[in-house]
Amino acid sequence: MKLNIALLAGDGIGPEVIDQAVKVSDAIAKKYNHEISWKPALTGAAAIDKVGEPYPDDTHEICATSDAVLFGAIGHPRFDNDPSAKVRPEQGLLKMRQKLGLFANVRPTFTFPSLIDKSPLKRERIEGTDLIILRELTGGVYFGKRGREDDGNTAYDTMTYTRSEIQRLAKKGFEMAMTRGKKLCCVDKANVLESSRLWRETVQAMEKDYPEVEVSYEFVDAVAMRLVQWPKAYDVIITENLFGDILTDEASVISGSMGLMPSASVGSEVSLYEPIHGSYPQAAGKDIANPLATVLSAAMMFEDLGLQQEADDIRRVVNKSLSEGVVTEDLSEGGKSYKTSEVGNWLAENI
Amino acid sequence: MKLNIALLAGDGIGPEVIDQAVKVSDAIAKKYNHEISWKPALTGAAAIDKVGEPYPDDTHEICATSDAVLFGAIGHPRFDNDPSAKVRPEQGLLKMRQKLGLFANVRPTFTFPSLIDKSPLKRERIEGTDLIILRELTGGVYFGKRGREDDGNTAYDTMTYTRSEIQRLAKKGFEMAMTRGKKLCCVDKANVLESSRLWRETVQAMEKDYPEVEVSYEFVDAVAMRLVQWPKAYDVIITENLFGDILTDEASVISGSMGLMPSASVGSEVSLYEPIHGSYPQAAGKDIANPLATVLSAAMMFEDLGLQQEADDIRRVVNKSLSEGVVTEDLSEGGKSYKTSEVGNWLAENI
Ligand SMILES: CC(C)[C@H](C(=O)O)[C@@H](O)C(=O)O
Ligand SMILES: CC(C)[C@H](C(=O)O)[C@@H](O)C(=O)O
Repeated sequence: MKLNIALLAGDGIGPEVIDQAVKVSDAIAKKYNHEISWKPALTGAAAIDKVGEPYPDDTHEICATSDAVLFGAIGHPRFDNDPSAKVRPEQGLLKMRQKLGLFANVRPTFTFPSLIDKSPLKRERIEGTDLIILRELTGGVYFGKRGREDDGNTAYDTMTYTRSEIQRLAKKGFEMAMTRGKKLCCVDKANVLESSRLWRETVQAMEKDYPEVEVSYEFVDAVAMRLVQWPKAYDVIITENLFGDILTDEASVISGSMGLMPSASVGSEVSLYEPIHGSYPQAAGKDIANPLATVLSAAMMFEDLGLQQEADDIRRVVNKSLSEGVVTEDLSEGGKSYKTSEVGNWLAENI
Repeated sequence: MKLNIALLAGDGIGPEVIDQAVKVSDAIAKKYNHEISWKPALTGAAAIDKVGEPYPDDTHEICATSDAVLFGAIGHPRFDNDPSAKVRPEQGLLKMRQKLGLFANVRPTFTFPSLIDKSPLKRERIEGTDLIILRELTGGVYFGKRGREDDGNTAYDTMTYTRSEIQRLAKKGFEMAMTRGKKLCCVDKANVLESSRLWRETVQAMEKDYPEVEVSYEFVDAVAMRLVQWPKAYDVIITENLFGDILTDEASVISGSMGLMPSASVGSEVSLYEPIHGSYPQAAGKDIANPLATVLSAAMMFEDLGLQQEADDIRRVVNKSLSEGVVTEDLSEGGKSYKTSEVGNWLAENI
């Protein structure tokens, strides 16, 4: 198979972890006789520095014409505490999601047997957790009208949803539930928000098309509680953009290692794969960041491209690295730890 | 001292737990020679059923002219899955917050030594947690313009903040931090939301008035993670209404027992005290609900009314009930458990 993969390393530790995913993917390509043509492109603060724009048109062109996008991380602290910055790395991310039509972020949450004791949560609460949060990614308060009034003393943001945006996301949720535990939980704040009431009524109307799926409706505040109390109660969760942002990060605590969690952002055309962790600027350039989440994101990519065996192979070597302790310092528990690049090399050799 | 206390029992288990707080408060009044005049008033679904309105004018009149309001819980499941309901119990709560000017919800999070092992989080992560979340309560998306367009197929909500709303809340946060660990964390989503950028710039401008307070700014998604990873890292957290709704509920997991957590909603005039748990309709009328959160809310009330010794006395008997196992079934670990009313009687007798 010939594959064109757009490669967006981004900021902070992005380039380092992406490098390892490339090594592993190339090893897979060699083993299974595929040909991967990597198309590097600028994004984030790195792109602002070079061309003044966090998601340049050239980058979009490359992504839109590729088979998939592999993404590192973006964000730089110099923008965070400057509320007046005109151009921000995050704008690139949002523009990319919108222009590529990536309307659903898929975030699996599961535990790794060998790492379960690293979780802040007790073993009996989390063992066997296997849930997916499906976060709407191109609507809501992220993309509504916002601005200032009254000489800058009043600020507003608008949370908007249309019925078809909700249907599109919910359909994916129902379909996903059908291939799994057949449970769907719609998370909203319908006791307060009109947009949430539209979510609830839209999902309610779709229930009849999926009679086998057991659907529940829960308020976001309650789920913020239950997700860490009894994560095993959930199978597929669907929710709007901002709630999804918060809940997916919260859910990442369950596994005990954010450095291992992959994600996919999918749409109608091309899909994007990225680790859920951020750009972690404090670690940038030190060759210490954990590359496994990015490597596992590449596995999700192969799977979605129809290459199941390739995906399984990657997951197998990742598990092997965990059980043999070939890990970065965040997972080494004071024992021997390896550099980011060493872990990448080891994985590639073991493919 | 003569005290007029508005008594809003509300829905579900509200009346039962409120009864116990009244018993305990009356015992305190007797011991310290105070005279409490309780003013019961309707609210929530109970008020809708009787007078068609979840926060009737009569109730407001009673609250506004009292020294404090003691509140049970509101909400009834028959409204939750009916997106078309015109009148909802929660509207009463929001109207009450707005009309009484309760702009700040104060939620302490701490652990009870005797209950620490009930937490889903590991002991070493939470032991010694002592944080307060100060949630803005009368602004943001709860009170912005909302509605439908396009034949009901588009719904929107508006998140709005003014600089003075933010200053008012932040001032309380800074002052609270000064009496505690001198650390303030402002939680927002300034990398996306304009209202969050106004929060951040407003709080930044106030820093110079509190040079001793160490201020940090964190994104809500990151805090949703860190709050369960390392709750001890926080002292005072300030945040807007919706983020506060989510984070306070999430934080309630830390202690291991929601049934114990009190809260206060404060403003310029009268303040309101309530347990953080909801109306728990499944348990209503069964005399099994844990009354301790409501009793501890009464303790917060006495403290704010300047009656520190009275507050300490209540906390002392609550701790005694916990260590002697005079608790409802949620805390009894399969051992002997007591009815809601029995716990209330025991507490009152032990004052
Ligand atoms: C960087 C930020 C804009 C982004 C978001 O809020 O969507 C991030 O938190 C994420 O979840 O991908
Ligand atoms: C019932 C609901 C409207 C309310 C809120 O969201 O404020 C509740 O969750 C709370 O936190 O008091």
